[in-house]
Amino acid sequence: MIIGVIGGGQLARMLAMAGHPWAHRFVFLDPAPDACAGPLGELITAPYDCERALLQLAEQTDVVTFDFENVPARSLEFLAGRVPVYPGARALGVAQDRLHEKALFHELGMATADFVAVAGAAALPRAVAELGLPAVLKTRTQGYDGKGQWLLRGPEDVAAAGRALGDQLALLEKLVPFDREVSLIAVRGRDGAVACYPLSENTHRDGMLHTTVCRPGDALQAVAEAQTHRLLDALDYVGVLAVEFFQVGTELLANEFAPRVHNSGHWTIEGAETSQFENHLRAILGLPLGSTRARGAHAMLNLIGAMPDAARVLAISGAHLHDYGKEPRPGRKVGHITIACPEQGLALPLELLAL
Amino acid sequence: MIIGVIGGGQLARMLAMAGHPWAHRFVFLDPAPDACAGPLGELITAPYDCERALLQLAEQTDVVTFDFENVPARSLEFLAGRVPVYPGARALGVAQDRLHEKALFHELGMATADFVAVAGAAALPRAVAELGLPAVLKTRTQGYDGKGQWLLRGPEDVAAAGRALGDQLALLEKLVPFDREVSLIAVRGRDGAVACYPLSENTHRDGMLHTTVCRPGDALQAVAEAQTHRLLDALDYVGVLAVEFFQVGTELLANEFAPRVHNSGHWTIEGAETSQFENHLRAILGLPLGSTRARGAHAMLNLIGAMPDAARVLAISGAHLHDYGKEPRPGRKVGHITIACPEQGLALPLELLAL
Repeated sequence: MIIGVIGGGQLARMLAMAGHPWAHRFVFLDPAPDACAGPLGELITAPYDCERALLQLAEQTDVVTFDFENVPARSLEFLAGRVPVYPGARALGVAQDRLHEKALFHELGMATADFVAVAGAAALPRAVAELGLPAVLKTRTQGYDGKGQWLLRGPEDVAAAGRALGDQLALLEKLVPFDREVSLIAVRGRDGAVACYPLSENTHRDGMLHTTVCRPGDALQAVAEAQTHRLLDALDYVGVLAVEFFQVGTELLANEFAPRVHNSGHWTIEGAETSQFENHLRAILGLPLGSTRARGAHAMLNLIGAMPDAARVLAISGAHLHDYGKEPRPGRKVGHITIACPEQGLALPLELLAL
Repeated sequence: MIIGVIGGGQLARMLAMAGHPWAHRFVFLDPAPDACAGPLGELITAPYDCERALLQLAEQTDVVTFDFENVPARSLEFLAGRVPVYPGARALGVAQDRLHEKALFHELGMATADFVAVAGAAALPRAVAELGLPAVLKTRTQGYDGKGQWLLRGPEDVAAAGRALGDQLALLEKLVPFDREVSLIAVRGRDGAVACYPLSENTHRDGMLHTTVCRPGDALQAVAEAQTHRLLDALDYVGVLAVEFFQVGTELLANEFAPRVHNSGHWTIEGAETSQFENHLRAILGLPLGSTRARGAHAMLNLIGAMPDAARVLAISGAHLHDYGKEPRPGRKVGHITIACPEQGLALPLELLAL
């Protein structure tokens, strides 16, 4: 089979690596000529909404998926009828708008932080008055890795965020004093079968995921799975999806979902019976889903800005190094490390934490 | 890094898949324009001894290795000084000649089946008289997957084998009534560090490997490791090497070694902490070797001639499918399946055995 991927970043790259053992080939569509997935398949260099490029993608491939959620919805609409596309346009559309996303969570009985819609900077003071501070202002669209978000603690923050927001539509969310951030990676097949990985616990730094630790047997696993199962069914979803939750006491508040393979699921490459990437391919190809069983506890460390010395990492017993082949640049995700970790205590060896 | 591989078969293909997570690129040299590793890197289509192609390989790559043992020794000699090549020409030379191979085994105190050298068909009757029947006649060079071998039980077999042998140099080996065939996959780094995987038990069919079962904790592990360690040191070997043994009672008889990653080590992709392919790359790149610990017992089934229906295989819990992307052809290795298996009892689910 030839699989098309809109987006040619590290997620597309790891999808291709999961497909190579089955002899599948990949075509990526990305505006960047140095998109890091490029060397693992054919790269069409064009904007995501270029109809000529989309037509070429549809003609060359048997099925199309995407590796990030800011693909223009109309690109998927253009492909519809020309080639099967999974996940579908509805899941993408909901994920692209934080207001629709939160509304769907509520519809499905998933608790969230309190929030109000904000129709641009002019509406911000009233929203702040209604919800109180501290709060987080988030643009309804185009946010990722902490971009398009402002933490509001006092009037100066409100004024500055208002200037940055301009007339963009936004959401003001009550700042949740959470105990943990966790994510559930789930997959749904074309036949409606659902499988979930053990919950991952995530730590962010500067708005970007820094470490993920997965220790199977989390007390909140069943709750997270039940909620996510409802979400997948409601969206008639096909493929891997990640839901991020805040844990407050024993309650989970749904924060957002990503209609794609997810950074907090990278540990599944070595740490699970079937990786999230393989399961995404199984789902979109209509194959039976693979076991999501974890091989014990695992930790993942994102490598941001530059790669460490490979020999130093690989000298740590059980460390698995992933280099996305990207030019180093401050704040850029250039790779990650996975390592098996104890069921209790420190998740990462001190050598890794010091990288 | 850019890694050159002489040979572009499934072993080269799996080496490339092990190198992609580290952002390495691959250049393959193979006479077949449809060599199955081709889609995972750049393919130079030329005979193995084409100096122009070898020069191109040396210029384009940082290090060169090979994926089968019948690469002409003079190709490695030509590359020497132009680009680092691992394993070296000496290991390849010994592995290419069954007489030199057996002589080295004896030199290192490794027991083998009794054998005599046979200088062509004319010398065969005398060799048969000396060694007795049943015996196996093997050409000294160019044999693999049972090719260049004849089982001799009576005078008719001797006559027929003599006609097929002609003036080729050969070895006549006493047929060993072995209890098991096992293989040890080992790796030696550029610094001389050695690591061994748990012994694999192999079953052949029509001269080709059919199934491999690895159950860690084999009683003969220490003996096999000690012998293989001596062999690796004697050859100043760098990379992965496989030694095949016959087990007779509690004794191991060394049969042959392969100076490369090996079919009986394919289970390590999912079944070991570090795959044989990753460890070969670690070795030739001068990186620390990875853990060879097995994640429990595993079985591997070769897919010969044609691929089964993927959905049927993937419906079996824990089955991992590998498709080499080759045209189906009788007797051709086109893929394999790995599955975790019980420590005792049947290694492969009945569904797999029926494929």
